Amino acid sequence: MAKQEIPYKIYLEEKEMPTSWYNVRADMKTKPAPLLNPGTLKPCTAEELSHVFCDELVQQELNNTDRLIEIPEEIRNFYKMYRPSPLVRAYFLEKKLGTPAHIYYKFEGNNTSGSHKLNSAIAQAYYAKKQGLKGVTTETGAGQWGTALSMSCSYFDLDCIVYMVKCSYEQKPFRREVIRTYGAKAIPSPSMDTEVGRKINAEFPGTTGSLGCAISEAVEHAVSHEGYRYVLGSVLSQVLLHQSVIGQETQIALNKYGIEPDIIIGCAGGGSNLGGLISPFMGEKLRGEKDYQFIAVEPASCPSLTRGKYLYDFCDTGKVCPMAKMYTLGSGFIPSANHAGGLRYHGMSSILSELYDEGLMEARAVEQTEVFKAAELFARVEGILPAPESSHAIKVAIDEALKCKETGKAKTIVFGLTGTGYFDLKAYEAFNDGKMSDYIPTDADLKKGFDGIPQFPGNEH
Amino acid sequence: MAKQEIPYKIYLEEKEMPTSWYNVRADMKTKPAPLLNPGTLKPCTAEELSHVFCDELVQQELNNTDRLIEIPEEIRNFYKMYRPSPLVRAYFLEKKLGTPAHIYYKFEGNNTSGSHKLNSAIAQAYYAKKQGLKGVTTETGAGQWGTALSMSCSYFDLDCIVYMVKCSYEQKPFRREVIRTYGAKAIPSPSMDTEVGRKINAEFPGTTGSLGCAISEAVEHAVSHEGYRYVLGSVLSQVLLHQSVIGQETQIALNKYGIEPDIIIGCAGGGSNLGGLISPFMGEKLRGEKDYQFIAVEPASCPSLTRGKYLYDFCDTGKVCPMAKMYTLGSGFIPSANHAGGLRYHGMSSILSELYDEGLMEARAVEQTEVFKAAELFARVEGILPAPESSHAIKVAIDEALKCKETGKAKTIVFGLTGTGYFDLKAYEAFNDGKMSDYIPTDADLKKGFDGIPQFPGNEH
Repeated sequence: MAKQEIPYKIYLEEKEMPTSWYNVRADMKTKPAPLLNPGTLKPCTAEELSHVFCDELVQQELNNTDRLIEIPEEIRNFYKMYRPSPLVRAYFLEKKLGTPAHIYYKFEGNNTSGSHKLNSAIAQAYYAKKQGLKGVTTETGAGQWGTALSMSCSYFDLDCIVYMVKCSYEQKPFRREVIRTYGAKAIPSPSMDTEVGRKINAEFPGTTGSLGCAISEAVEHAVSHEGYRYVLGSVLSQVLLHQSVIGQETQIALNKYGIEPDIIIGCAGGGSNLGGLISPFMGEKLRGEKDYQFIAVEPASCPSLTRGKYLYDFCDTGKVCPMAKMYTLGSGFIPSANHAGGLRYHGMSSILSELYDEGLMEARAVEQTEVFKAAELFARVEGILPAPESSHAIKVAIDEALKCKETGKAKTIVFGLTGTGYFDLKAYEAFNDGKMSDYIPTDADLKKGFDGIPQFPGNEH
Repeated sequence: MAKQEIPYKIYLEEKEMPTSWYNVRADMKTKPAPLLNPGTLKPCTAEELSHVFCDELVQQELNNTDRLIEIPEEIRNFYKMYRPSPLVRAYFLEKKLGTPAHIYYKFEGNNTSGSHKLNSAIAQAYYAKKQGLKGVTTETGAGQWGTALSMSCSYFDLDCIVYMVKCSYEQKPFRREVIRTYGAKAIPSPSMDTEVGRKINAEFPGTTGSLGCAISEAVEHAVSHEGYRYVLGSVLSQVLLHQSVIGQETQIALNKYGIEPDIIIGCAGGGSNLGGLISPFMGEKLRGEKDYQFIAVEPASCPSLTRGKYLYDFCDTGKVCPMAKMYTLGSGFIPSANHAGGLRYHGMSSILSELYDEGLMEARAVEQTEVFKAAELFARVEGILPAPESSHAIKVAIDEALKCKETGKAKTIVFGLTGTGYFDLKAYEAFNDGKMSDYIPTDADLKKGFDGIPQFPGNEH
């Protein structure tokens, strides 16, 4: 370990932190397909989107041209609270695997929300505040995003309404309490506060909710209350923009030590972390300056990239949101009950979908018991208990490092460690008890989801 | 905030990290009283202690003279996994309070065990491995120490047996699962595996256990199994030695920026964090080089320093351990049922007890609803959800900063933020629901505990 001068953890100095977000769309020859108004099937206008989203965020959502967008000083100050995040050289993991590969991970879990979600939450709260809004609404599943948003709204003294999938609200009360500690209101979804919630409760008495339903409730709440807008923690291009801070810090840290990555790996649900991590590197590839192998890792039980269709689809169950063109399993798709972690969204960021469709990025689907084996190994040697989501990336990083062991090639592997597993210990318990199982949806299972994808000219399937 | 060049977070470089622990006993004119053999009432010999503790740790326990003890390279490598910990300038908190004070905190929560406990756990595991032992035993309450020890034993491939207070084992399963993920064995205490456990189960059927009982079980397990020794996460002088890495890093970081603290504050249960944080600064005070105000903060419901007696007492319920001279509430003292966090040990480190008795350190007792108010404020402005234990220090740091606001004096306050509150959300829930209460033991309550303190010549009360 002493042969190099690369420390275990590379921390940037404050003055080295990025001052602009990087907008990968500016370097894409084919831009991601625009959001569509489900009523008119025409691209959403800024005016239409501004009923749902804050004005400045609408501009960012539609901005396909500006390569750099300045990070406002207030957000940069907030970033200093928990950033820069460390880029860690996985010396212990390399030694354990006996691989010639050099492995690095960008660890985003050292903040109270426990994940990278805070990078976009604070930006969205800032623009809501700047617009003079009273508050924002959102949905949350297990609670990473809801926690991040509640922290951000508390900072700007904004009202924060979180529709939390009912089964998480009841069975995973810990993140709910973090949300409450930050003064936000957590509402079990489906609730009786919204039309869509009342309808779903009437149709399916005793339902424990779903992410798609919570999104619909949050959007309805926002558009029906003066001074509120809806905010979303993934999928949208604005979110990938904010998350580019992950990739930029990674790039600066690597450059500082002259490290050239060969493979960059990230887990992918809606794409917020993966998109943020790879964006600046993808920019180099798109501009023909460098080449990298990018690998998106998704759960085999929710395989939107590896088995989904690249079509326009609804973003939510209630079909109140704009439609997005993306790799999708259909808005009615819900992963099987034994699926433990996040990464359960039916679609994938339009930016990443387009890059994947063009062959600029690979995707792999992995099964969860293998993921938890990788998580356990990683926890034991690197000392960080990873979130199940992040562990998808760990699994493939280990696979690639073991390939290097076979071939003798000393590749440099960088992966995103998005968060900690402190709030996922029920899943670890199942794994420790040998009770974790895998499930790969059959083609028939997938067909049910695909059947819900809208058909219209240009979107036939 | 721009007027100074002090960053939000001061991280030392790896090469700046301490290479020796600092032993404050070397600079104490009056040494802490030695451990006594409860049978003979004579100071424990190294040979006697070596049945319970690893040989090298016995040497450290008895070493009152060497000022610096080298940190073995293996331990320094492990420290690099999660250290240096950041020294954070609490700009956000200062602004919120409107105080002229400068507030800094040393944050020890950025590791999977969630607290500073890992600093000593890895050292104790290392010496056990070096001695060729099979494994170690310990007790844990809520689980911070058990988690830290399981991580450390996993690293050195040592067997790790954790007697976990039964009510925690059953009602707080999350840390238990972290412990299991690291391959350690968590046993609910009182168990049927030890004589003392069987006795307590027979006497009190259905008992949910206590820390003192779990200590007795862990010690019995160690002394009755070939190749095992007992390890402890607080109170002992060896633990304060290992924890001095906190204070040394703090001192190096402050010196780097020419910052001179006026007040240094830490929460105090058994004393591991407080002792570690203040040791190097106390050394300067003892040597007459500098002066600082040290404040130990303890719960009003378990007030060993502020209301205890400075006497020899048993360290555990089963009375199997050596006796220590310390500020104590009696080994039978158990905080009232509404006491939420840790800091529930009946005694206090002999080193800190002696320093306190000599007037070199102050102590304050605070009530838990006030502590949680401080925790909530801190979480909202500094973005870290603090452990209830750590929040005792936050409370007094805020009190002192508000005094500065009144007086206009810009004092520099440093406090120890020992860990995160991710596993304490039941307590936060009670606070969020307005259901948290306070309890200050009456003199009659305390008398019951005091009555259990042994009487012998020189230890009359």
